[in-house]
Amino acid sequence: MSEDSSPDDAAVGLVSLVGSGPGDPELLTVKARRLLDTADVVLHDKLPGPEILGTIPEDRREDVGKRAGGEWTPQEYTNRRLVELAREGKHVVRLKGGDPFVFGRGGEEMEHLASEGIPFEVVPGITSAIGGPGVGGIPVTHRDHASSVSFVTGHEDPAKDESAVDWEALAATGGTIVVLMGVGNLPEYTDALLKAGLDPSTPVALVERATWPGMQVATGTLDDIVAVRDAEDIEPPAVTVIGAVAATRERVLEFLRNRPDDEMGVTDA
Amino acid sequence: MSEDSSPDDAAVGLVSLVGSGPGDPELLTVKARRLLDTADVVLHDKLPGPEILGTIPEDRREDVGKRAGGEWTPQEYTNRRLVELAREGKHVVRLKGGDPFVFGRGGEEMEHLASEGIPFEVVPGITSAIGGPGVGGIPVTHRDHASSVSFVTGHEDPAKDESAVDWEALAATGGTIVVLMGVGNLPEYTDALLKAGLDPSTPVALVERATWPGMQVATGTLDDIVAVRDAEDIEPPAVTVIGAVAATRERVLEFLRNRPDDEMGVTDA
Repeated sequence: MSEDSSPDDAAVGLVSLVGSGPGDPELLTVKARRLLDTADVVLHDKLPGPEILGTIPEDRREDVGKRAGGEWTPQEYTNRRLVELAREGKHVVRLKGGDPFVFGRGGEEMEHLASEGIPFEVVPGITSAIGGPGVGGIPVTHRDHASSVSFVTGHEDPAKDESAVDWEALAATGGTIVVLMGVGNLPEYTDALLKAGLDPSTPVALVERATWPGMQVATGTLDDIVAVRDAEDIEPPAVTVIGAVAATRERVLEFLRNRPDDEMGVTDA
Repeated sequence: MSEDSSPDDAAVGLVSLVGSGPGDPELLTVKARRLLDTADVVLHDKLPGPEILGTIPEDRREDVGKRAGGEWTPQEYTNRRLVELAREGKHVVRLKGGDPFVFGRGGEEMEHLASEGIPFEVVPGITSAIGGPGVGGIPVTHRDHASSVSFVTGHEDPAKDESAVDWEALAATGGTIVVLMGVGNLPEYTDALLKAGLDPSTPVALVERATWPGMQVATGTLDDIVAVRDAEDIEPPAVTVIGAVAATRERVLEFLRNRPDDEMGVTDA
């Protein structure tokens, strides 16, 4: 099964678009671990988290998340660098937090590579939008409570014309709503969901730094979760889970045995 | 990091609710692999797929997916067996296809364990609803095409009163819709989505046996995908991806290098 990661052309290398999972190195896939250990170079930003990045030798990794001066690297730079390294015949891992295709711009990178004629493979990862709540005792679907789950991003590209997420339609689905990068705009979208008719007592959970050291979970309801966020100092990166399933954690927490620091930050709001 | 998987009580064992990912053994997490190699017993059904199940010795696994005579095992039996084995002091892995909490009844099992006082941990897995399309070159979100993605199940529990998925609300979100276990009822929900006003030319992809040997992908549009399914003999287990992102595959396929058999079954419908 190793041939799938080898360049099939002596001149051009291969780019592996790899999801890191939520941050616990043991939640990398076996394949991601193998590629991180064998690739010529790993292009990454900060989202895979300190523990996973710490397992990759400095001389084999490039941080494309920031440039000197603290500016964000434009996506164009990352795209160009991927092509450049592959054309040198290198096996390049592009490591993305969570899954490459869940609000991770992996789709754009993949299309750019194809347009430049660079062979690539996709190695999915566990999105923190499912795995984060999961390790916190919150199932995003539940036969009794949620027959659908929708994922949205809390900070939309303001340059996009039709950027507004349709919170009314999401509320009307009746399913769980998970908001990624959802701490900053929490007041705006909880308000939108209340206006759309969701019950103010709908359970809500905030999962900060899922599976990282210092993971925190805070729970409340649609009408008090902003106050809970402030009282508990919940900060990015975090996901917000909205729906009946968010109340599950309180019912099972006594017997939940994940990483020891998972039990910090429980809030009975 | 190994203490998180050890029973913390000499009398009672531990149940690990583990997601297997979509089926490729290399898409197991490092932790799932470790637990499969060390647990006293693994309770599973058929969904993790033949390759992963083949890596677990017969004398350490129990198939709770079927009983003699071909009947489905009631969830009650699985719940009871998990508690029974844990009370014998065993470390039990409950292996679920994909992620335990994405239409996998993991939520129910977790609540049952907690109600019986059994310690448990959650080990998320890659859901085939994201990883399946992903390895096929289909990103479930895309900055230009989809600012949300919703997951629903194609066969709902008919005993549930409010069982009807609200296809109209899902269509109104404007985002990608992914239907798990969605081959059988494809005519019903494509029809519902057309009636809800989705464009008949909306791209649709069917991903069968994602990452298993013999994986197939077929693509079409909302108004011809049923005919494509029949012409290409797409059978369960499969996921359906509905939305502009489903057209990405055709644009990138020439340079996609996943498992060799991934390139079978491409349909230009």
